[in-house]
Amino acid sequence: MAITNEQQEEIDSLRSEKFSTRRPISSALEEVLYQALPVLDHGFVRVIDYMGNDASIVQAARVSYGKGTKKTSEDRGLINYLMRHRHTTPFEMCEIKYHIKLPIFIARQWIRHRTANVNEYSARYSILDNEFYVPEAHHVAAQSSINHQGRGDLLTPEQSQYVLDLIKKESMNSYEGYIDLLNEEGDPERPGLARELARMNLTVNFYTQWYWKIDLHNLFHFLSLRADSHAQFEIQEYARVMLETVKYWVPFAYEAFVEHRMGGAHFSKTALTVIQKLIQGEPMTQEISGLSAREWKEVMEKLK
Amino acid sequence: MAITNEQQEEIDSLRSEKFSTRRPISSALEEVLYQALPVLDHGFVRVIDYMGNDASIVQAARVSYGKGTKKTSEDRGLINYLMRHRHTTPFEMCEIKYHIKLPIFIARQWIRHRTANVNEYSARYSILDNEFYVPEAHHVAAQSSINHQGRGDLLTPEQSQYVLDLIKKESMNSYEGYIDLLNEEGDPERPGLARELARMNLTVNFYTQWYWKIDLHNLFHFLSLRADSHAQFEIQEYARVMLETVKYWVPFAYEAFVEHRMGGAHFSKTALTVIQKLIQGEPMTQEISGLSAREWKEVMEKLK
Amino acid sequence: MAITNEQQEEIDSLRSEKFSTRRPISSALEEVLYQALPVLDHGFVRVIDYMGNDASIVQAARVSYGKGTKKTSEDRGLINYLMRHRHTTPFEMCEIKYHIKLPIFIARQWIRHRTANVNEYSARYSILDNEFYVPEAHHVAAQSSINHQGRGDLLTPEQSQYVLDLIKKESMNSYEGYIDLLNEEGDPERPGLARELARMNLTVNFYTQWYWKIDLHNLFHFLSLRADSHAQFEIQEYARVMLETVKYWVPFAYEAFVEHRMGGAHFSKTALTVIQKLIQGEPMTQEISGLSAREWKEVMEKLK
Amino acid sequence: MAITNEQQEEIDSLRSEKFSTRRPISSALEEVLYQALPVLDHGFVRVIDYMGNDASIVQAARVSYGKGTKKTSEDRGLINYLMRHRHTTPFEMCEIKYHIKLPIFIARQWIRHRTANVNEYSARYSILDNEFYVPEAHHVAAQSSINHQGRGDLLTPEQSQYVLDLIKKESMNSYEGYIDLLNEEGDPERPGLARELARMNLTVNFYTQWYWKIDLHNLFHFLSLRADSHAQFEIQEYARVMLETVKYWVPFAYEAFVEHRMGGAHFSKTALTVIQKLIQGEPMTQEISGLSAREWKEVMEKLK
Repeated sequence: MAITNEQQEEIDSLRSEKFSTRRPISSALEEVLYQALPVLDHGFVRVIDYMGNDASIVQAARVSYGKGTKKTSEDRGLINYLMRHRHTTPFEMCEIKYHIKLPIFIARQWIRHRTANVNEYSARYSILDNEFYVPEAHHVAAQSSINHQGRGDLLTPEQSQYVLDLIKKESMNSYEGYIDLLNEEGDPERPGLARELARMNLTVNFYTQWYWKIDLHNLFHFLSLRADSHAQFEIQEYARVMLETVKYWVPFAYEAFVEHRMGGAHFSKTALTVIQKLIQGEPMTQEISGLSAREWKEVMEKLK
Repeated sequence: MAITNEQQEEIDSLRSEKFSTRRPISSALEEVLYQALPVLDHGFVRVIDYMGNDASIVQAARVSYGKGTKKTSEDRGLINYLMRHRHTTPFEMCEIKYHIKLPIFIARQWIRHRTANVNEYSARYSILDNEFYVPEAHHVAAQSSINHQGRGDLLTPEQSQYVLDLIKKESMNSYEGYIDLLNEEGDPERPGLARELARMNLTVNFYTQWYWKIDLHNLFHFLSLRADSHAQFEIQEYARVMLETVKYWVPFAYEAFVEHRMGGAHFSKTALTVIQKLIQGEPMTQEISGLSAREWKEVMEKLK
Repeated sequence: MAITNEQQEEIDSLRSEKFSTRRPISSALEEVLYQALPVLDHGFVRVIDYMGNDASIVQAARVSYGKGTKKTSEDRGLINYLMRHRHTTPFEMCEIKYHIKLPIFIARQWIRHRTANVNEYSARYSILDNEFYVPEAHHVAAQSSINHQGRGDLLTPEQSQYVLDLIKKESMNSYEGYIDLLNEEGDPERPGLARELARMNLTVNFYTQWYWKIDLHNLFHFLSLRADSHAQFEIQEYARVMLETVKYWVPFAYEAFVEHRMGGAHFSKTALTVIQKLIQGEPMTQEISGLSAREWKEVMEKLK
Repeated sequence: MAITNEQQEEIDSLRSEKFSTRRPISSALEEVLYQALPVLDHGFVRVIDYMGNDASIVQAARVSYGKGTKKTSEDRGLINYLMRHRHTTPFEMCEIKYHIKLPIFIARQWIRHRTANVNEYSARYSILDNEFYVPEAHHVAAQSSINHQGRGDLLTPEQSQYVLDLIKKESMNSYEGYIDLLNEEGDPERPGLARELARMNLTVNFYTQWYWKIDLHNLFHFLSLRADSHAQFEIQEYARVMLETVKYWVPFAYEAFVEHRMGGAHFSKTALTVIQKLIQGEPMTQEISGLSAREWKEVMEKLK
């Protein structure tokens, strides 16, 4: 991770200040506030601010004058009920703001989630740092022969080395060209190229960064897709760290999310019939199930 | 305003608690946090929570590791610049949550703003209180003969009295019927009608309430439309109270909003030409302006 | 249903015109275009316009230069795959526009879905018709004693008659007062009250109407919630008619929706374990299941 | 532009089919439907589908049973009125769908507009073509010394050549590495790297493509920002071509947009006072205006 000393000092300075507030707080999340939690080789996740805690979900669901919470066990039960029955609006009443550093190709997947607020570091305005993503050798895999959009077998150490050497070399070339085009303090023969053009020379594994703010319901939706095993490994890494911050922030909501969404499964009408028959001990095979071979496999995996 | 003693105690209890936080605070907004600021005869606006302050706008615009702010004067200048050039995303990085009590017909206008989070008190689940809006006599006006969707001349005291008596009587009838249908503790001959049906009998001036959460950019958009003199008087009253809370919360952003949005004006291409000629002292009348009579009048009003 | 002769002529006139287009069409949906499909006592659903058909989903998923479709069976399979794996964006590429007439209290539930475009008939600008919803006697039910936000047992014919008489009488009073306040051609002693104020006297079972436009993915989300048995009966009635229009419009997507969403079910992590044990023939009761009595009941109902 | 013969045949095939519809059409837009309108060196804009025309705006504003339109001149006047008074919802009732081919760095700016539907060509799933953006020599400019996020003086032909040679060379290297990593039909010593990883080696001037669907109101918002002279030149090029398609599609709305939005200007409260004094012939300089030097300059430019 690339946090410079100066940046770390800024973070430490923020962390050293304490204020008095009437707003609800989340003590466990306060503990990690502003800290750069490392992801991949140069990325990070930083929680910058948050609004509300578990009790805020209850308070909104009850449209309360006061706290809205009763006994802790009742709050927990209500949050579980709301998640189970997909009552989504109370979860929208909590909000979190992150500072994220991530490779451009991951930023491009991420930004597809439209229900968030974003301020990205502008390469029209500023100069990007010389930081690019190179996978670890044990994550370098071949194209999957089954899943058209995923990874298959790992490469051997030698094959992997070849790949990584190529990526590193090209990334370095790419940045060298970028700096050359910018010509910040260089060649008197020509002016520096406009930043908005010079950046064209960078590969999509270079790191960008943004402030990203989202409500808890939409964050759960993001995490259910991006912490899933079908997501690209690199974005999963971010999702996993963010899930940890959610656990600190709203432990009851986190628990309900893991129980009902992350750990749960959805079945089609036909799959439900198959399950009913299996429970009743009726004979059942893919051939007579009404499911395609692929769907059958998916259903069986969910039931493992 | 109808805050019961019990509700006021809940509010006071919330206000009496103080917590320690690393998050940015807005001291002036903390002062009024949770308090019910009265609007109309039974309504209110309560700030329940907020995220960020003026410095958060600057911090997001700079994608900062630390506070992002420099000198206060520089922050103020940057916020003014962002507002002037409609750089909207940094303003999205602040969030506020309100508890609002308002007549149903105003709730119907309000909800048209889609970029907010809402939890409304459910009349399927709960029983509404006997509170309905009756205008003050000096706000009772005839249909405008000019503006198809507005008010014209005020009614005389006698005319106004007639109107208010009718509205009050009908509202009371309406609630009486509602209670009769619910039959909460009543007629042993029949069960209480389902709440989701009984509410059909209520008129749209009955009060509902909701939690409403929005980011600062979208709140400014809401306020620019609803604190405007073309909005219905009743929703303006809410917007004015909310504007005050914004002034407490983010004074620099508020100042920039008043300067550029509330106090500013937009001119069409043709109107710009008219203004240019007026400045150059050229003769100009509606007839030769290229503007319709109505547009001319609108332009002249903006220039008054 | 209240379609006046004049309105029906306008509709017939629209339906009589045919144009030539290069755009994809849906023949079955063209058949009912503009027609008022009746819902409740005075409401309707009218399809006003649409964009795309089943092939458009495939075309977008493939980011095609041409039609994007191959064999019909392949298209059907792809659409089923997209629905099964919650690839939602291709479904967003179809759009539909409705004209809906509905009671105000249903409009208030409906508008909670924010990802749609709306133009509502303005009671600030225009005068509402004398049309209000009165349930049919066999839909008049008591408050449920189990479900806090639903209906329980039906009322007896006599009880029901009492309820309906009261609602009718109050609705008529309400409209009479409205007309009195508007004083459109009446009392020379006083001017007509501004429309935006006079409407306060109307009960929430009066009909309003709007144009409502939404993409297919978000429509499916709306329908999965509102055609569900937990939704209020009156909004279910609208959802059912709209589902029919979707069946005409995009039959493959409709089929996949019914298979995976409407007819499917979601299970929590713990419920999955219970199902696994049931299939393996292990003994299982609510007490040892890890599920609460209520969750157990919900799971068993899904498995029926 | 890179449309292959095969792609052109697919387009021609689509264009050759005509269907009969009851829906409103836009004849001028039908003329260019599906055609690839070239932008930059390899990009294009294709209109794939549309919903509604000028009359649909009027129809929605009136919540009509029939066409909603009266005389053409009245429709034009109403559309102009709606645009002037920022009644945005009727414009949301028209929808358009584009197929766009564009460099990745432009796609990253574009996607910031969240109120649209998107299906992007997936580089996890498919292999990108060898097409990258290289500016024309007369668009190669130095970093602006005034505007931190813009271009300043053009480079000399020699300087420009240096820049373009470097960009071309690096882009070619970049693609060569990509192909090497994919190893589609190559080196038996190692498998092809997963596509989702190999793409890391591509520079952000490579072309991607997507289906992009948006309503007319939000399209106008996009165009007002992206056809503006402060936007990056490359995205302006797309916006200009899209503006042309809007002119074909909804000529009255286009006219109102140019009059009120593109050609109009907004002034702050202080600037309004300055204008008022200028019109009254009072002496006025920046020093006494209350405007900063920069704001004064901006106001004067709007008045030129």
